[in-house]
Amino acid sequence: MDLEDAGIGEGISEVIVTTKSASGKPNAAPIGVITTISDETGEPRHFVKLYRGSQTLENVRETNMLAANVTNDAIIFVKTAFENLSEDNFTVFVDMPVLKEANAWVIFTSDLVEERSDYLRFQILTRAVEIKRKEVKAINRGLNAVIEATILATRYELIEDERGKVEIRKLMERYAEIVKKCGGRREKDAIGILQEKVLQRYGFRFA
Amino acid sequence: MDLEDAGIGEGISEVIVTTKSASGKPNAAPIGVITTISDETGEPRHFVKLYRGSQTLENVRETNMLAANVTNDAIIFVKTAFENLSEDNFTVFVDMPVLKEANAWVIFTSDLVEERSDYLRFQILTRAVEIKRKEVKAINRGLNAVIEATILATRYELIEDERGKVEIRKLMERYAEIVKKCGGRREKDAIGILQEKVLQRYGFRFA
Repeated sequence: MDLEDAGIGEGISEVIVTTKSASGKPNAAPIGVITTISDETGEPRHFVKLYRGSQTLENVRETNMLAANVTNDAIIFVKTAFENLSEDNFTVFVDMPVLKEANAWVIFTSDLVEERSDYLRFQILTRAVEIKRKEVKAINRGLNAVIEATILATRYELIEDERGKVEIRKLMERYAEIVKKCGGRREKDAIGILQEKVLQRYGFRFA
Repeated sequence: MDLEDAGIGEGISEVIVTTKSASGKPNAAPIGVITTISDETGEPRHFVKLYRGSQTLENVRETNMLAANVTNDAIIFVKTAFENLSEDNFTVFVDMPVLKEANAWVIFTSDLVEERSDYLRFQILTRAVEIKRKEVKAINRGLNAVIEATILATRYELIEDERGKVEIRKLMERYAEIVKKCGGRREKDAIGILQEKVLQRYGFRFA
């Protein structure tokens, strides 16, 4: 099944992955779905890397299921990078928790294909697709600046040398400036939430 | 008329602006449509800054018309940043040249509101809208990395000090790495075109 129509094309698609524990508790986290196209058959294959210690990995090990929620909502990316969403953000599709506000849902089953010291890599196989809302959307540099700043923030604690940390803080400043200049309200609110989270967790302010 | 449905929301929407000269020759260039929402009325207003020396400015001064083409095509952004498109990329909508492959077209008339040493700012008023193709599309970091690298490349010649140039080249390297990791074929082809253009114009390679 080709997921292009659900917004998941070649390369890495940044989506919100929703999963549930064996007991049914839903979880949401921002994750890249990696899509490769076979040179021989032209068929796409999809993978995810799930990091050790994450709730997503724990849930996938328990259920072998995950859902990709395709969305442009900067706030959801920031929030889920730092904490789970409250239950009222979720609904159910094919017995899996998914985000009410997503533009498309894709349910996958997972096959473990690689074990690394920091992550496990799974091939994921499409089981169901629901396209909820198609739209036209111009590129907004602020939206992606929120995503880039969020990724940097989550990596910050993994950087050990002070020079590396300074470099990351400088890039985060730069992205915050792009959001200020180019973002809409949603992106500006999102970077505000990120600034709070970063101050709480790491004790520094940016932009 | 609210342009949200055509993909042009609050903040800066990166679009391809198409214009024509008095004699009818079409031109395409990547430009940000600036949308502000009035705190009092909630009404959006749209603006563009057109740089002196650009064909777009010359055409808008001759015709007082421009079209915004909403697209996610990384290749079109890179190409139009460095050269005009060939005529077979254009079609006509309400007597204006527009891009065949765009997802939406918006035709504007222009009112000069500010003159600066390097650009003129126009308020633009919607005259016609055509939504051509709605879609679902997950965020792809590679797509925006192409846009950011392209913007940096077009600014490179304006930077005078060597340290500033080194900084820009370093950022461009970083964006090229994001494209390599996260982009699809279209984004990878686009960064390849950008690398060629940069080598031709400035004589350096990146990534």
